[in-house]
Amino acid sequence: MARASVREQIVVAGMKTLLQQGFNGCGVQDITSAAGVPKGSFYNHFESKEALGVEVVERYWRSSNSRLSLLRDSSIAPLERLRRCFTSQVEALIEWNYERGCLLGNLAAEMSDHSQLIRERVAVAFAEWSRELEKVIQQAQAAGEISASMAPAALAVFLINAWEGAVLRSRVDRSRAALDAFMSITFDKVLT
Amino acid sequence: MARASVREQIVVAGMKTLLQQGFNGCGVQDITSAAGVPKGSFYNHFESKEALGVEVVERYWRSSNSRLSLLRDSSIAPLERLRRCFTSQVEALIEWNYERGCLLGNLAAEMSDHSQLIRERVAVAFAEWSRELEKVIQQAQAAGEISASMAPAALAVFLINAWEGAVLRSRVDRSRAALDAFMSITFDKVLT
Repeated sequence: MARASVREQIVVAGMKTLLQQGFNGCGVQDITSAAGVPKGSFYNHFESKEALGVEVVERYWRSSNSRLSLLRDSSIAPLERLRRCFTSQVEALIEWNYERGCLLGNLAAEMSDHSQLIRERVAVAFAEWSRELEKVIQQAQAAGEISASMAPAALAVFLINAWEGAVLRSRVDRSRAALDAFMSITFDKVLT
Repeated sequence: MARASVREQIVVAGMKTLLQQGFNGCGVQDITSAAGVPKGSFYNHFESKEALGVEVVERYWRSSNSRLSLLRDSSIAPLERLRRCFTSQVEALIEWNYERGCLLGNLAAEMSDHSQLIRERVAVAFAEWSRELEKVIQQAQAAGEISASMAPAALAVFLINAWEGAVLRSRVDRSRAALDAFMSITFDKVLT
C-alpha cells in the first residue's frame, strides 16, 4: 500500500509538473519534490522520466472521462453535446489564464521527435478522442443536424486539430480570441 | 565583419537546433557547436538563450517570405493561392518525415508560460501571418469564390490554428492523414 501510494503521488505530481514546465523543462527532482517523496523513490516505480511521461499521458487522457460522458449523453442532441464539450474546455482555459494548455498538444510539439514511447501514447489518446467525436458527428448527421457531405472521421480529426491549434494560439495571445474564432467557425460553418 | 559573421552563424544554427531539439532540449553549447563557434562567443552577441530565441522566431518568420509572395501574387486566383500555399507546406512536412514541425507552434507549446519575450514574438508572427491570410480571404470573398458570411479575420485565425494543430497531429501519427483532413475540410467546407 505504501509503495502504491508513493507511485500514485509521483503520477499526480508528474502530470502537474509536466503541464506546468514541459518535459524538458523539469527534472525527476522537480517531480519528486512536487510529490513530496524522496528522489530515490522515483526509480523504484519508474525506469525513467520517459516511462513516467507515458503513464502521465494515459492518466491525463483518462482524467478527461467527464468530457467523454458528456459526448456520450444521448439525452442531449448530438450537436449540442459537441457545443457544450468545447464550451466547457474554453471556460477551463480562460479560468487557467491560458496557461498549461493541453498536455497532448504540448508533448506532441516537444517530444514527437525525441520519444517514440510518448509520441505513440499521445497518438493513441488523440485517436481515441477522434473516434469519440466521430461517433457524435455521425449521430448529428443521422439526425439531420449537419450535412452528411463530409466524412465524419476526417471532420473529427480536423476539429480536434483545430482545437489544439486554437489552444496554442490562445496561449501566445493570452486571449480568448482564438477560442472564440474556433467556436464560431466550427459551429457556424464546419458543423452545418 | 568577423563579429557579424559569428552572430549570423549562431542565428542560423540556433534556428536549426531549436527546431530539432526544442528550447529546453538544447543548451547554448549545442547551438555554438552546431554553429562551429566557441561557446564563449555566444555571449558577445546574445544576452541569453532566450534573446537568441526571440531573434530566431523573427528570422524563422522572415524566412517564410516565399510563402507570403505566393499569397500576394494577384496573377493567381485568391482561393488557388491559399490552396497552393498549404499544399506546399504539406509537401515540406512529408519531405521532412513529419519531423521538426512549425517553430511557432513548438515554441507556443513549450515556452508560452515561461518566456514573455518569446511568447510575444511568436504572437506577432502569428498575427502577421493571420493578416496576410485575411487579405486573401477577403479577395476570395470579393471575387465570389467563397461565401462572405464568415468574418475574414476569424476565418484566417481559425485556419492557421487548424493548420498548426494538423501539423502537431501529423507528427505524433507520423502520417499525412491529419494534413489530408485539413486540406479536404478546409477547401471543401470551410472555404466555400
